[in-house]
Amino acid sequence: MSKLRVESFSISLDGFGAGPQQGLEHPLGKGGERLHEWLLPTATFQRLTGSEGGTTGVDDEFAARGFENIGAWIMGRNMFGPVRGPWPDDTWKGWWGDTPPYHTPVFVLSHHERKPVEMAGGTTFHFVTDGIDAALARAREAAQGKDIRLGGGVSAIRQYLQARLIDELHLAIAPVLLGSGEHLFHGLDLPALGYACKRHAASERATHVVLAKASQHV
Amino acid sequence: MSKLRVESFSISLDGFGAGPQQGLEHPLGKGGERLHEWLLPTATFQRLTGSEGGTTGVDDEFAARGFENIGAWIMGRNMFGPVRGPWPDDTWKGWWGDTPPYHTPVFVLSHHERKPVEMAGGTTFHFVTDGIDAALARAREAAQGKDIRLGGGVSAIRQYLQARLIDELHLAIAPVLLGSGEHLFHGLDLPALGYACKRHAASERATHVVLAKASQHV
Repeated sequence: MSKLRVESFSISLDGFGAGPQQGLEHPLGKGGERLHEWLLPTATFQRLTGSEGGTTGVDDEFAARGFENIGAWIMGRNMFGPVRGPWPDDTWKGWWGDTPPYHTPVFVLSHHERKPVEMAGGTTFHFVTDGIDAALARAREAAQGKDIRLGGGVSAIRQYLQARLIDELHLAIAPVLLGSGEHLFHGLDLPALGYACKRHAASERATHVVLAKASQHV
Repeated sequence: MSKLRVESFSISLDGFGAGPQQGLEHPLGKGGERLHEWLLPTATFQRLTGSEGGTTGVDDEFAARGFENIGAWIMGRNMFGPVRGPWPDDTWKGWWGDTPPYHTPVFVLSHHERKPVEMAGGTTFHFVTDGIDAALARAREAAQGKDIRLGGGVSAIRQYLQARLIDELHLAIAPVLLGSGEHLFHGLDLPALGYACKRHAASERATHVVLAKASQHV
């Protein structure tokens, strides 16, 4: 069966996946962009943003694997944008311009209905209002046997972890302290939920770990 | 001035410095010994326990620096032993046998008075009942210009962090999940307390980070 995978999700040394005061000015929360310093120079990220060159090596390998065999994405409302409450209109279409880097159907968890938004390059945003299981079912159908990538943010990942629905979770631990914001693991007992650390590798910029079900090979 | 340093303090990926159910049977809490798998094979640790050989490299460098220029130690009651409440007698003399690996005065934080215990090899355990500031003052005097190492555990480190008294904190992040136990950073805003990550380096077995006051070079 296709897997639900979290890839390239960055957290700070003190465990935060986003800084405080997330919003239009600080999409990743204050200081949150420092979590991604390992990702930006990679060849994979450069290619995504239409540039050439970039680094190869451990960071790039992990960045690249996040796009392999992905047939659909799921993301939380806050990852899609800063709008809260009912959608006032159709103006907001994500942070990523006319051609988002997904190129698959993307299922956005929301409490508020909205018609699908079709973007250039094969990305269509669908808004799912009936919960994480429904979003996963729709994503799995859309993925046609490929894997589903859960983009984030912290709240969406925590919900899927608690439901034991994530098959693999790649974290990049960045050498920064955030102090406050959204904590990824607080109050979650990962071994009790069935997870173990299956792989780890470090670069100059981050420590990469892959968590998966204890019974599973990655 | 001499520094207060935490060295070789191991935490799990989910932030625990000790596992649950700490006690005589599990000095580091259940599963807590997995935090130290990076340390045990090092030449420094092997030498401490009277053996020869052991690994060199990043892990050993960090293990070794923890013993450089140390004139006194401070540790919490739980790190000294499993006895809780008033000392019933003088039987318990630490986990480390007749010749503990400290070879300096060691100031044990306790709520209960007890006479100093002199061990072989230069270690004397002093019991300090009037708080962390008093323990630090006594350790600083005993260290005669050298640094003071704060051994742990989690509770002692958190108290000294909150008081902004720690100058350097070396953490080894082990690639394991504990799920519950004593969390090192929960509720502490380290940047607000003045700390930043000054150094990081990884081995096959752990990611080493050194936190210090933002203004300080390490």
